[in-house]
Amino acid sequence: MLLYHDTRAPNPRRVRVFLAEKAVAYDTIEVSIAASAHLTAEFRKKNPIALLPVLELADGKVLRESMAICRYIEELHPEPNLFGADAWERAQVEMWNRHAELELLFPIAQVFRNTHAFWVGRIKQSAEFGTIMREHLGERLDWIERELGNRPFFAGDRFTIADITAMCALDFGKVSDIRIKAETHPNLAAWHQRVSGRPSSKA
Amino acid sequence: MLLYHDTRAPNPRRVRVFLAEKAVAYDTIEVSIAASAHLTAEFRKKNPIALLPVLELADGKVLRESMAICRYIEELHPEPNLFGADAWERAQVEMWNRHAELELLFPIAQVFRNTHAFWVGRIKQSAEFGTIMREHLGERLDWIERELGNRPFFAGDRFTIADITAMCALDFGKVSDIRIKAETHPNLAAWHQRVSGRPSSKA
Repeated sequence: MLLYHDTRAPNPRRVRVFLAEKAVAYDTIEVSIAASAHLTAEFRKKNPIALLPVLELADGKVLRESMAICRYIEELHPEPNLFGADAWERAQVEMWNRHAELELLFPIAQVFRNTHAFWVGRIKQSAEFGTIMREHLGERLDWIERELGNRPFFAGDRFTIADITAMCALDFGKVSDIRIKAETHPNLAAWHQRVSGRPSSKA
Repeated sequence: MLLYHDTRAPNPRRVRVFLAEKAVAYDTIEVSIAASAHLTAEFRKKNPIALLPVLELADGKVLRESMAICRYIEELHPEPNLFGADAWERAQVEMWNRHAELELLFPIAQVFRNTHAFWVGRIKQSAEFGTIMREHLGERLDWIERELGNRPFFAGDRFTIADITAMCALDFGKVSDIRIKAETHPNLAAWHQRVSGRPSSKA
């Protein structure tokens, strides 16, 4: 298996952490967004919309989208289970993984895209929308803080894909000066320490 | 089963079309976003972040997020299969469902939220970002048009959840004057006619 990724982007990291939890071996090709390598005709043969990550299988088949890749790997390597062990747990994990993606990763990515100097001259930015998303994210973090008062991990008693998504989202926030503050968000800070202590977090 | 929904919102419709394809019976409670019924303390007991749809089971358990709900229903009612029949098809369906969601539904929803009079005074809008998303969507529709030259449905030879997401997204675009033009996007128009001809599209 070959993973096309950028070591600094949050979506490829979701896949790398997932693969580390599964202890699956794979090769990588760095596609540097900073160097616009994702925009080349060559990479667009792998992904016409120029997004990372992309997984290429030994037979040349290509799979895009971080969660499609992780789900496929879960089917090939079921243990340790990271998407839920029965129908109801799978539903809960999917719900919390989507919350982590849509309520945390999405606004964090929009703050970055719309306000960071990295994207100046690369995409059309709206600082106005970036400000709206930063404020929106603040409300969502307050909600997650309350939720994590009830359980150690996003989807329940154990580590799942939802924690991977949330960790990659929040770590990526740092580049936009979005940080978990232990004084105001102690549950979130304790959760972050818990997931960051896993060897997979270094992937 | 009880579905909290708004008949005009795209995410609840994804679940209704899915349930119609499965021929599963359920009850509904209308939670009118126009009347701000989703913002009440009562509804926030079902969903603290005030989003629709929400599924309530007979035992009172609650499930949020359209795709968590659809996946759960797929497990309870496997036929007709809408998420893929083997590991590779499931990966393809997930990839295309995410493309339909992230590349079509997401920009369409952002155009609506940021530019439509419906949201004035309800949320902070950025017309600037709405314009950026409208242009971005145009590029994505051109890409999908090329893709649908190769196959009749989003994820391959048969109707899946990816078609449901894409249909709900594009139909919802009309309120923001986003329309499929048969002259420039004949494959997309033919696909739309194909999926709209299914009885489930009326759900």
